Amino acid sequence: MIGKTTWVIADGYLPTNSTGNQVSHEAVCVLNLTPDEAVIQLTVYFEDRDPLAGFTCLCGAQRTNHIRLDRLVNDAGEQIPRGVPYALKIDSTVPVIVQHSRMDTSQEALALFTTMGYSG
Amino acid sequence: MIGKTTWVIADGYLPTNSTGNQVSHEAVCVLNLTPDEAVIQLTVYFEDRDPLAGFTCLCGAQRTNHIRLDRLVNDAGEQIPRGVPYALKIDSTVPVIVQHSRMDTSQEALALFTTMGYSG
Amino acid sequence: MIGKTTWVIADGYLPTNSTGNQVSHEAVCVLNLTPDEAVIQLTVYFEDRDPLAGFTCLCGAQRTNHIRLDRLVNDAGEQIPRGVPYALKIDSTVPVIVQHSRMDTSQEALALFTTMGYSG
Amino acid sequence: MIGKTTWVIADGYLPTNSTGNQVSHEAVCVLNLTPDEAVIQLTVYFEDRDPLAGFTCLCGAQRTNHIRLDRLVNDAGEQIPRGVPYALKIDSTVPVIVQHSRMDTSQEALALFTTMGYSG
Repeated sequence: MIGKTTWVIADGYLPTNSTGNQVSHEAVCVLNLTPDEAVIQLTVYFEDRDPLAGFTCLCGAQRTNHIRLDRLVNDAGEQIPRGVPYALKIDSTVPVIVQHSRMDTSQEALALFTTMGYSG
Repeated sequence: MIGKTTWVIADGYLPTNSTGNQVSHEAVCVLNLTPDEAVIQLTVYFEDRDPLAGFTCLCGAQRTNHIRLDRLVNDAGEQIPRGVPYALKIDSTVPVIVQHSRMDTSQEALALFTTMGYSG
Repeated sequence: MIGKTTWVIADGYLPTNSTGNQVSHEAVCVLNLTPDEAVIQLTVYFEDRDPLAGFTCLCGAQRTNHIRLDRLVNDAGEQIPRGVPYALKIDSTVPVIVQHSRMDTSQEALALFTTMGYSG
Repeated sequence: MIGKTTWVIADGYLPTNSTGNQVSHEAVCVLNLTPDEAVIQLTVYFEDRDPLAGFTCLCGAQRTNHIRLDRLVNDAGEQIPRGVPYALKIDSTVPVIVQHSRMDTSQEALALFTTMGYSG
């Protein structure tokens, strides 16, 4: 089945500011082409402290899930902080495809970027 | 022959708004380096409902086709809705190369992103 | 030696307009880590006509060359037209790494995108 | 262990100008999922002169490091010049994942791009 069970994003950053009516944010976009629901665990890595785990999401069979990283809460009630460089590891119970995008509206108008994740 | 017959894009989104004289849109850009015409089937995946199929395009031998996703109509007359997160699977009868790009003019000026598709 | 001798870019487009003091353009950025000069041939593919060849560039050993696609001229004096969707195949005599970027200043301010090329 | 010890970025460029309160810059974002600290050597390649080496960074075990390329100084006190096309090779003592991003605020508002590095 097309896809991988582990993906990495090295450039994570949630801008602190927004302008206009769209909030600066990032999303991990998952596509699950398998016949089984995917249980997805995200681990957040920082420059100067231990990783943060316990972020769990689901993605149904033959479904996509565009996971908003600025809204994600882990099982200890923690969120990814804004204004801090981070990186992500995404582990899934079934093979999926992962793409990461950022919308940055911090300085007038908006900017976007995207990349496929790295899967080894 | 360079290329693959199956490609995936996980972050699909057609912005609802546009400013200026360029409409917000996405394109799946296909290059066919083979000596045969490619018949391309697109399947659209959503977060909360069954996939939409029946979108068919052609790409001639030694030709490119920049398929506008905001103009695509399937054999049941359906289109990809604006303002809804989706993902794409692209299947081709011959090996091709697929790249996906978005132009977002929803908030003054314009933003672009692009990535090669994922091909396993 | 790290790199490949054939690369593909599927989304090529030179915007027709520019604003401010930076012209809308694209570049194919090559890095040659080998001890030999690279002779690079670019072939341009279109939606509705035969490919255009005869674009030749050099990239020295241990050098980069950021090839401006809006300034490229082939051996018949032809250029890549603006405002027309196209795709690129890049062939090199030695293994190189290829990345493709666009700057679009067509609608106030500027937008950028980039992706590594596809190398099979 | 997921990752590679050699990565390449072909499109490096530090814009000369900035607007607003965010400076135009680039970053090489590294994630180290191994149990050992990564010693990272960057080599900078140019179009018309010999490569510049001696740029050394660290990335701790289970840590990320978003290396600001506009602030990097090598062991001879040299920096990557602004306004000059360049390319990068990144060598690490342990397998890591590398992503490269640019923020360009040279012409009103801001533009972003990103791509995973190339790892062979």
